[in-house]
Amino acid sequence: MVLPTSKFISALRIAGRRYPALRATAQCRSVFPCTQARSFASSPRWQIRTKEMNDEHLKDLKVNQSRLMEDIHHTCQWGTGERWGEHTGMSRLALSDADKAARDWFVSTTEALGCKVTIDAMGNTFAVRPGLRNDKPPTFVGSHLDTQPTGGRYDGILGVIAGVEMLRVLADNWTETEYPVGVVNWTNEEGARFPKSMVSSGVWAGDIAVETAHNLREVHPGTATMAEELKRIGYLGETPASHKAIPMAGHFELHIEQGPLLEMSNKKIGVVTGVQAYKWFTINVKGRDTHTGTTDLKSRADALLTASKMILHSHRLATANCALASTGILHLKPGSTNTVPGSVSFSLDIRSPKDETVAKMTQLINRDFPKIAAGQDVLDSNLGCTPGLPLSVEIVEDFSSPATNFHPDCITSVRQSAHAILGPESHNLVIEMTSGAGHDSVYASKRCPTSMIFVPCREGVSHNPREFCKEEDCAMGAQVLLASVVRFDRMRDERRVSWKQEPYTL
Amino acid sequence: MVLPTSKFISALRIAGRRYPALRATAQCRSVFPCTQARSFASSPRWQIRTKEMNDEHLKDLKVNQSRLMEDIHHTCQWGTGERWGEHTGMSRLALSDADKAARDWFVSTTEALGCKVTIDAMGNTFAVRPGLRNDKPPTFVGSHLDTQPTGGRYDGILGVIAGVEMLRVLADNWTETEYPVGVVNWTNEEGARFPKSMVSSGVWAGDIAVETAHNLREVHPGTATMAEELKRIGYLGETPASHKAIPMAGHFELHIEQGPLLEMSNKKIGVVTGVQAYKWFTINVKGRDTHTGTTDLKSRADALLTASKMILHSHRLATANCALASTGILHLKPGSTNTVPGSVSFSLDIRSPKDETVAKMTQLINRDFPKIAAGQDVLDSNLGCTPGLPLSVEIVEDFSSPATNFHPDCITSVRQSAHAILGPESHNLVIEMTSGAGHDSVYASKRCPTSMIFVPCREGVSHNPREFCKEEDCAMGAQVLLASVVRFDRMRDERRVSWKQEPYTL
Repeated sequence: MVLPTSKFISALRIAGRRYPALRATAQCRSVFPCTQARSFASSPRWQIRTKEMNDEHLKDLKVNQSRLMEDIHHTCQWGTGERWGEHTGMSRLALSDADKAARDWFVSTTEALGCKVTIDAMGNTFAVRPGLRNDKPPTFVGSHLDTQPTGGRYDGILGVIAGVEMLRVLADNWTETEYPVGVVNWTNEEGARFPKSMVSSGVWAGDIAVETAHNLREVHPGTATMAEELKRIGYLGETPASHKAIPMAGHFELHIEQGPLLEMSNKKIGVVTGVQAYKWFTINVKGRDTHTGTTDLKSRADALLTASKMILHSHRLATANCALASTGILHLKPGSTNTVPGSVSFSLDIRSPKDETVAKMTQLINRDFPKIAAGQDVLDSNLGCTPGLPLSVEIVEDFSSPATNFHPDCITSVRQSAHAILGPESHNLVIEMTSGAGHDSVYASKRCPTSMIFVPCREGVSHNPREFCKEEDCAMGAQVLLASVVRFDRMRDERRVSWKQEPYTL
Repeated sequence: MVLPTSKFISALRIAGRRYPALRATAQCRSVFPCTQARSFASSPRWQIRTKEMNDEHLKDLKVNQSRLMEDIHHTCQWGTGERWGEHTGMSRLALSDADKAARDWFVSTTEALGCKVTIDAMGNTFAVRPGLRNDKPPTFVGSHLDTQPTGGRYDGILGVIAGVEMLRVLADNWTETEYPVGVVNWTNEEGARFPKSMVSSGVWAGDIAVETAHNLREVHPGTATMAEELKRIGYLGETPASHKAIPMAGHFELHIEQGPLLEMSNKKIGVVTGVQAYKWFTINVKGRDTHTGTTDLKSRADALLTASKMILHSHRLATANCALASTGILHLKPGSTNTVPGSVSFSLDIRSPKDETVAKMTQLINRDFPKIAAGQDVLDSNLGCTPGLPLSVEIVEDFSSPATNFHPDCITSVRQSAHAILGPESHNLVIEMTSGAGHDSVYASKRCPTSMIFVPCREGVSHNPREFCKEEDCAMGAQVLLASVVRFDRMRDERRVSWKQEPYTL
């Protein structure tokens, strides 16, 4: 008996007209007897229940592409970075004033859409739109609003704004979900300002102690801790940062691929089945400061020359083991043109879809770096070099994220949605893939069913002002995200989601 | 007829007695008819003229080792650095407050010793002790009081303080030089704070424009220029920084070797006949910032991996060409663990005793670095690597110092002094050598006869808090310095110093 409502909605949309703000009058009720008022809305409106929607009705829930892009570019006014083409890149470091401005927009916008907003002790911001049964946890859409120092407009931002667009579409279409749905903005996902990526979803998942996270100190040049900055910008919430305090029934994340695969293979949607494993290390090389002009090569303990050999060697090991090895940070001391550096510290980021490969790389690094420091030859590392004095090396593992497999129910929701939306040609446009990057979904997946949706980005470039995702691809991703959440919402009754759910009160 | 005076002095010293402040009474005059009053002293005293001193008398001019060391450690209270053993190293960057304190000490101490102090537009500070003929330029002892950020207590400092000790010894012994003698503290010799080494002697010599020097901006983190800092600490003198305004008849510099040769060969004194050639470059590598987790190795333009190959290659080229190649500064952007750096800048310091070798190294760098950036293999630089995307490189020559040959008259003064002081065994204790490091003497030698004296330092370590020179070696060096200046002062009359001398007025 809801069909008429839905058809009526479709008919109106086809006619291109906006809805009148219909009141729940006796006359209306007589026309659509089954409808009911939203529990939280200021004005009671007609509803359609997701449970009562078939794939046809789902198609009626249409993302507004121009509105989505307006929201993205509107929020990108806060924390603009280097100019690129008609737009700028982004430089919105976590908990900066720019981040605060974007967060404030997120809070006021979601509240205006009827959400209840909760901020936890890590500044994670959860906006929840009630459903019909609010005794169970919401299904969340989540990502992050912080960026790299020279980042783009899509990494993280698209995921959050697409969540806001989902809320707008549900509101526009009077859609009532069976269970609450929410959007979460996770804090400092990038780990660019406070050097631990995905740290706040990590605390939520119970894998990182809140004290550890609060005491993280921002990277050069500042000295502030996360706790200080959370407090300063007013996002140190009183709710504990924990899956126990804020449980989730599911977590969906839309993200640009940040790699070249979708673009190269002309695909539109990546159904993400998991995330590759990775480890972060800090390598400290200790030699001896000496004068560049008076110290012959054999009397040197050159920490930078040695670090260069190690960086090159890590790349060779990665090549040999089909892994990734990258150094993104390097500091040396004392830092003078005519002084051979006696001290170098650099970061090392090792990744592979397989835990065993990362473990093997770790083993090889621990085997070879001390040899290189000691001056031994490793894979011709000393080819054509003058033997110098021995150095020492310290290898510190800062962070480890094992390979993640997402939840079959969420993957199914995404897969079905992608194929339904992309239609007959979908088998050419949708692929299943693992994520190369870590995302908050990695931690979310430890505490609730999770999956991700990837859309192509130009040349696979990310963490760069040139990062770009076509408007239609952003919209397509948001459409699949919305449909996945609704499918999952229905699925929660149709078949038991194989996951223990914490008790929940909105 | 001065012999009696000198013998009398010697006799008194041998008796271990200090001089009474004898007045120039008629009686005294009758005893030592040839003596005369110092032109500048507040109280006329008995003199001995260097011209009238033979090698025997020269030996009577004895450096006071404990006083020398007291002066060194006293001035090292300003700008102490990292602790090492019983002492600390030094961190006295040019024109810092610590540098100002050391300069103030230098001015007041030399003025108290009867010197006239002149400060030029680069803050070079010239303390001149008048001689008998003040219409000709002084013979200078010069070095610098600034240090590296993690420097020691001897590099530069020994040279200036030994100059002050020379003034003390001349005063104690009533010694009258034929021509004025002086001590100069050159500004920012290290080039550690304002990135141009020996910049102020360079301006004095007319090789560097004073505007260029004044506009030098301090290296990270500050932003001040040399002119601003000279003004701030009150050392922006009105006298032009030029050999024309302040001509020199000769320049002698005592310095620790900063290399291992003297110590390894058990020598005490190095007679420095010249300085090796060197060039400083800034190398800018441009690639592309991309995500470390999602960008496969072949889709990367990794500026740090490429810079690592270049640094290693420069070392290989140096090994192959018996030259030195060193990188002491490296900056990368954006500087995030999970972003492949798209931009790296590093310094390259190339040295060799031969200009042709430095020229050849320069040619090879300019030939090979662009190839490495483009991804071509150079001497197995790509061995075991994954071919990536091409990068670009910019090679900027910042500074060039050709090989320097010191002046035969000055070298002779040092050689004769060293052998006379070290006695019968001197042939085992004195060697002639070229300096690996640049010194202000390089620029001084362009405008006046110049030479240097090296003393051993432990393990050849310099630009390091561990830098150490034995007290007896410091004193021996100061003794040779003093004797060299006196010999040169005598020589200026005995035989025409083969050098055009600017007119001079004290």
